[in-house]
Amino acid sequence: MHLFEYDIVAEDPTTHARAGVLHTPHGDVPTPIFMPVGTKATVKGLLPPTLERIGTKILLANAYHLAMRPGADLVAEMGGLHSFMCWPHPILTDSGGFQVFSHGDFVKLDEGGVTFRAVDYGGSYVHWSPEDNMAIAQKLGADIVMQLDQCPGYPAERSFVERAVELSSLWAERCWQAHDAPDQALFGIVQGGMHIDLRLRSLRHLEECGDFPGYGIGGYSVGEDHKTMFETLAPLAGDYMPRNKPRYLMGVGNPTTLVHAVACGIDMFDCVLPTRTARMGTAFSSEGRINLKNARFAHDKGSLDAHCGCPACTGGYTRAYLHHLVKQHEMAASILLSIHNVSYLLELMARARKAIIAGSYGAFVRSWDDLPAANDW
Amino acid sequence: MHLFEYDIVAEDPTTHARAGVLHTPHGDVPTPIFMPVGTKATVKGLLPPTLERIGTKILLANAYHLAMRPGADLVAEMGGLHSFMCWPHPILTDSGGFQVFSHGDFVKLDEGGVTFRAVDYGGSYVHWSPEDNMAIAQKLGADIVMQLDQCPGYPAERSFVERAVELSSLWAERCWQAHDAPDQALFGIVQGGMHIDLRLRSLRHLEECGDFPGYGIGGYSVGEDHKTMFETLAPLAGDYMPRNKPRYLMGVGNPTTLVHAVACGIDMFDCVLPTRTARMGTAFSSEGRINLKNARFAHDKGSLDAHCGCPACTGGYTRAYLHHLVKQHEMAASILLSIHNVSYLLELMARARKAIIAGSYGAFVRSWDDLPAANDW
Repeated sequence: MHLFEYDIVAEDPTTHARAGVLHTPHGDVPTPIFMPVGTKATVKGLLPPTLERIGTKILLANAYHLAMRPGADLVAEMGGLHSFMCWPHPILTDSGGFQVFSHGDFVKLDEGGVTFRAVDYGGSYVHWSPEDNMAIAQKLGADIVMQLDQCPGYPAERSFVERAVELSSLWAERCWQAHDAPDQALFGIVQGGMHIDLRLRSLRHLEECGDFPGYGIGGYSVGEDHKTMFETLAPLAGDYMPRNKPRYLMGVGNPTTLVHAVACGIDMFDCVLPTRTARMGTAFSSEGRINLKNARFAHDKGSLDAHCGCPACTGGYTRAYLHHLVKQHEMAASILLSIHNVSYLLELMARARKAIIAGSYGAFVRSWDDLPAANDW
Repeated sequence: MHLFEYDIVAEDPTTHARAGVLHTPHGDVPTPIFMPVGTKATVKGLLPPTLERIGTKILLANAYHLAMRPGADLVAEMGGLHSFMCWPHPILTDSGGFQVFSHGDFVKLDEGGVTFRAVDYGGSYVHWSPEDNMAIAQKLGADIVMQLDQCPGYPAERSFVERAVELSSLWAERCWQAHDAPDQALFGIVQGGMHIDLRLRSLRHLEECGDFPGYGIGGYSVGEDHKTMFETLAPLAGDYMPRNKPRYLMGVGNPTTLVHAVACGIDMFDCVLPTRTARMGTAFSSEGRINLKNARFAHDKGSLDAHCGCPACTGGYTRAYLHHLVKQHEMAASILLSIHNVSYLLELMARARKAIIAGSYGAFVRSWDDLPAANDW
């Protein structure tokens, strides 16, 4: 095995799904995989031993937030992100591009990078070049890092999306040139919105630029519906992306989307959805999403999800107790629902992987689509 | 052994400290002991497996809050508090009296009980008689429950404190008559403020009323200073309270006060201090209280407390990381500091118990008083 090689373990005969292993300096990552998000170097409510216990293999952290606080130099001084956040397993840091566009104010873009006002961090003006972005990524020291990119929303003018592809491509080149950490994989990011030709142009640019060990796919789950997303995602992943590189669909965490995206050949996912919805009292379940605040749970002696083996579902906590904790805004509600929701996605991907290896992923998707949960998208 | 018997294991030769064991239906409680507070049937930030892991032997929950939400009937329907909150070990519920006086509005008192407006719970008017209080306690089903009492603040007119003693005594009688759960111990509560004669009158009333298996001592740590508190607490506990009954100093959690109160012969303590201060970023430590928000910790690679063996101090988390988590208002900060602060008090009482059994508690107190932490009171 070589570092950052992606070994394909099995390919499903009736879908584009594949099971693989990505080798990183901090351990192997089995795919398909869901990556819980530790925005500011902590997954909200879940300490590292809990994340290990529920089967987390790789975490995501946000370069943007960490560069602002506590700063990449501080993290480097503390021995890098693994040491700083006490997570000795693989970590991926995003480029920060998405946060710049969603959290920043007065965003100005050019070939040289992005200038923005960091509204969440005292309102200071920040300029980031692709080279800055790579310097930050190398100081943070994750196993996998993402190029700086521009992520357009939806709907967007085609010309706007086209310019975002061009700019992202230029930034990809500069990131590729600037990045020189052999123990860290730099992934390029495919943009192009809901236009298959722009998606393919973006992919071709990246392939011409360098031999990226993996690809992010950005600019989905930004407001479009399920059908619109898969009209371009399915051919992009299924027919055009190189077979021997991991494909990471950025910022997507809806269970139904995960199941369908795996069928298109997607290998990696991340999203704040499981922990964010947990903090609002909502749990994934085999019945679909349920909000524990609902009065119908007040006397319910059942566990959160009878089909789940996570510590929140097997720990003796009833729905009635969870209802009480949610209503009273108790931290235990956020913690228990986060444990369950993250476990749910980890377990869903682990079961998907088994089905792919068994050659039965087509049936797996069909049986998922019969569940009430499939309608939650 | 008999249920709720208090076995004295050792008495220190130079102080009034004693080590004992209290037998309850859900297990033995070694004393002296600190009881973490799970106000609304959850210790904020700490799930039951974590509480077990750090050595918690008995929890406290608040009858007032639970009676308001989710209601004592709901808890009974769910199999009682042990089952509801997934804590199969001993539980003590307070009377709710303290909460009525601190959280209630328009409080009116008479022999028949207390009428108040529950400001935290929709502002409804509630009337509680001593009999109501016992019915709630029995529905909640804790191992140890407290009589309804009136807790005066400080400073207070002597005549006001005197009336509070009289009323608490009347309520003690009615609670004693109303309580009929053989698997549940009802403790009387000694009031009397900073007046030793009123404290002794209160104790005598209780002894005349019935054979309470233990005594709470209320109305301390309500604004008085350390010296004022011990002027009456020391003779009350050391010279007058019956030897063979556990003595529970209610609502006190300052480490120095615990060390000194044990020397007076106190056996049990509870307080929200360790978890509440944790949520504000403050940790107990051998250096005294430290606030992790302080910029001096930003680059500190040390653990929270080098002398502590709790999961927060041995898990690899640096003060720099905790500083970052506190500054960013991350749940992990509250969780880790709560783990440490609760562990700190549990461990302090475990060490005190060993010193008492070794007959060296006098030296234990002197060495404590030499620590910087002793000045935190």
